[in-house]
Amino acid sequence: MSGLKKMLNPEVTAVVGVSTSNPFSPGNVIFRKLCFENGLKTYPINPKGGLVEGHKVYRSIEEAPSDIDLVVISVPAKYVPEVLEQCGEKGIKSVIVVSGGFSETGGTGKTLQHEIVEIANKHKMTMVGPNCIGVFVPDRLDTFFLPSERVARPRKGTVAIISQSGGWLIERLEEFSGRDVGIAAAVSIGNQAQTKVADFIEFFGKEHSVNVILAYIEGFGKDEGRHFVKVARKITPKKPIIVLKGGESEAGHRATRSHTSSLAGDIAITSAAFRQCGVIQAVDEDEVMAYSKAFSFKPKPMKGPNIGCLTVSGGHGVIASDEADSYGLIFPSFNEEEQAFLREVMTPAYQGIASFRNPCDLTGSASDIDYERVLDRMLQLDKIDAALLLLLPYAPGISLQIGARVANVAKGYDKTVVAYVPNLKKYEVIIRGFELNGIPCGDTIEEAVQMLNGIRKYTRYLQRIGVVK
Amino acid sequence: MSGLKKMLNPEVTAVVGVSTSNPFSPGNVIFRKLCFENGLKTYPINPKGGLVEGHKVYRSIEEAPSDIDLVVISVPAKYVPEVLEQCGEKGIKSVIVVSGGFSETGGTGKTLQHEIVEIANKHKMTMVGPNCIGVFVPDRLDTFFLPSERVARPRKGTVAIISQSGGWLIERLEEFSGRDVGIAAAVSIGNQAQTKVADFIEFFGKEHSVNVILAYIEGFGKDEGRHFVKVARKITPKKPIIVLKGGESEAGHRATRSHTSSLAGDIAITSAAFRQCGVIQAVDEDEVMAYSKAFSFKPKPMKGPNIGCLTVSGGHGVIASDEADSYGLIFPSFNEEEQAFLREVMTPAYQGIASFRNPCDLTGSASDIDYERVLDRMLQLDKIDAALLLLLPYAPGISLQIGARVANVAKGYDKTVVAYVPNLKKYEVIIRGFELNGIPCGDTIEEAVQMLNGIRKYTRYLQRIGVVK
Repeated sequence: MSGLKKMLNPEVTAVVGVSTSNPFSPGNVIFRKLCFENGLKTYPINPKGGLVEGHKVYRSIEEAPSDIDLVVISVPAKYVPEVLEQCGEKGIKSVIVVSGGFSETGGTGKTLQHEIVEIANKHKMTMVGPNCIGVFVPDRLDTFFLPSERVARPRKGTVAIISQSGGWLIERLEEFSGRDVGIAAAVSIGNQAQTKVADFIEFFGKEHSVNVILAYIEGFGKDEGRHFVKVARKITPKKPIIVLKGGESEAGHRATRSHTSSLAGDIAITSAAFRQCGVIQAVDEDEVMAYSKAFSFKPKPMKGPNIGCLTVSGGHGVIASDEADSYGLIFPSFNEEEQAFLREVMTPAYQGIASFRNPCDLTGSASDIDYERVLDRMLQLDKIDAALLLLLPYAPGISLQIGARVANVAKGYDKTVVAYVPNLKKYEVIIRGFELNGIPCGDTIEEAVQMLNGIRKYTRYLQRIGVVK
Repeated sequence: MSGLKKMLNPEVTAVVGVSTSNPFSPGNVIFRKLCFENGLKTYPINPKGGLVEGHKVYRSIEEAPSDIDLVVISVPAKYVPEVLEQCGEKGIKSVIVVSGGFSETGGTGKTLQHEIVEIANKHKMTMVGPNCIGVFVPDRLDTFFLPSERVARPRKGTVAIISQSGGWLIERLEEFSGRDVGIAAAVSIGNQAQTKVADFIEFFGKEHSVNVILAYIEGFGKDEGRHFVKVARKITPKKPIIVLKGGESEAGHRATRSHTSSLAGDIAITSAAFRQCGVIQAVDEDEVMAYSKAFSFKPKPMKGPNIGCLTVSGGHGVIASDEADSYGLIFPSFNEEEQAFLREVMTPAYQGIASFRNPCDLTGSASDIDYERVLDRMLQLDKIDAALLLLLPYAPGISLQIGARVANVAKGYDKTVVAYVPNLKKYEVIIRGFELNGIPCGDTIEEAVQMLNGIRKYTRYLQRIGVVK
């Protein structure tokens, strides 16, 4: 585990497999990233020696200086054991093997994989891979050999991502970047020959900078599932773990075998195990984003299923009601007294057209102050565990200040609040107003409801194990 | 119905309720849009007379010139009957009443609504509304009183949208614009006092420029459901109708009553009726977009449930398999012979690492030509009814030409083909390459699978009624 700390935060790195003739080989892309984008002292390694990007190329790890924290290996599979052996002898503690050609190809690849695990273990080295794209830590470390011009990288934040699929991980980077959700680290574990998904979960579980752990898992090896459950049970009382499980259908099983050669396992058993140890299972990419984003904010617990909903469009209130219902969440009806309590603070001219039955439709005539005041009163109602704000900036009375103003009201209450604002450039000030003040914004009504669903699921688990009352 | 043709394509319009003191009143926003943005000859009407935006204000419809095709009425509810009466006497055939304060407020509002329907019927006028935002036809007519700087408008295209909720409609405009899906018209029917959703479906059913009709419906009035089914049954053999039904949950019912005062009805009965007359029901906004976009392309029929999938990332293949399975669609396994048939055309160096079991994972090493050649062979397989292309431009061998090149291959086969490409500016050339050549691109894997699901549902209906074999 000490190797993981070093791996994600190295000072000196080396890249084995930098070509002197092809500047676009994976090794060269990685070298340039580490050296120029991350500003790390980095040694290029190639038996031929020479110069790459003006840097001296060492002929082997053995020949390179001895201050190396992390080695990234990108050479054909058959050369990997020798390179690893040299790393071990030099006392290097962290290696990432991006090369493919191991157990995913069957036969001799399997034997080769077994061999490299033995070498790593013998030298007490922490090894990630093989058959992976490595590790990305914003502003620090980027071994992903996909040019930055093709794939955006998200900003620094609180979500740690672990993935068995490099392609899936890359897509999350692009998506998190587009939604402005920051990440603490992203790790491609590939064949996870030595370091497993559970090892990373354990590691990120202890990192204070991480609020939520997200993992894409296609399957577990022998005994690995049991270990995963044991680790998860230790972490979930402190922070949520979200899992998307791939390969659940028959065709998915088949695809999984060709992809990471892992066994997808029985869906029902896996899901039951996840539930038992407090892991939140996302069913698709939409839920992955909704849950990750919501938990990146460390939201207040949602102690029951009851939502108060504030909208400026009747149709949106209707749709939100249906969505909530499909997740088993409730929009409790407000009685006459409660309705009068809310109506009272609305601008007199619009008291007659607004509706307060829940969803509360303030109509397109509402302005910031109506929204603020009605929310303030709604959060006082005991029957409400959370507030869902449908905030369509189309209404002319809604200003760019609405986000910051409403978030300020929510601060005074110990209840979950999430908003829906379409993720458009022109609404950026509103979204930032919410999010810099602790309220996550969903990009669709469904996403905002999914956020509440995730928070409710997690709170229910914390209530069950006695961490939250 | 002749009134609808005129309403959507007027040459001369009038706006009743233009303020001489408040340039931001709805009437003024509408007047400016019709006059300046749509370039229509437009008369502003206000009993006080005077000047608005340099135009002479007429004191009444009676006083205005008599060449008016369409009148938009935005005055307090109590004045609406008198204005309508004048319109009728002047022989005007089309009116849009945007004013609220009718049946949605109960009591006297209900009586008032009854009164305006009687006036419209007496004079054989086609009336849309009240309590609506009217009509938008790209490059021609825009009565939506939301400033264009707040809400984007989509380009001209082939989707006709009808909505009981103005807010929902506005959001679709924004979304269709962002996804570059063009529309033929968007109609907010509000309380649909006289002209109903079925009237518009009948109208758009006959318009050659419309490929697909999308409707958001909260509920039907008395006998209206039966009429809807009768009309839908006539249209669906020619073009698909997509419906999102709001107000299906208990809280949704409650919200619907406050919103459009319609009765949401029994879910099971409504869904069965939709299915029977070939209407495709979307369950949420994601499906609304997937189906609308797919059918806007007039896709080739999908004669069975079997999909061949081509990807450059194993994880994406796994996820697509699971998604397809959840919709009852099938990724049939390819046998040794079929695999060899596909493998044969792959670049020799990558034949060993690519997988052809379906999903076919060409790996991140694949280039445009591999993708083209393998697709060409896959579409020849009898066991495949459609192709799903997962095209992640992250892979360095994939060029900006891939869309146009692959679409060209697909043209040679009578099978449905859809692609998944993330909707990002930097991939615009790829997406356009696909879409200008007839292949719709989903923004997520799920959306691409939903597109196939929609096409399959519609084809199955056409097979059932004997329109497609």
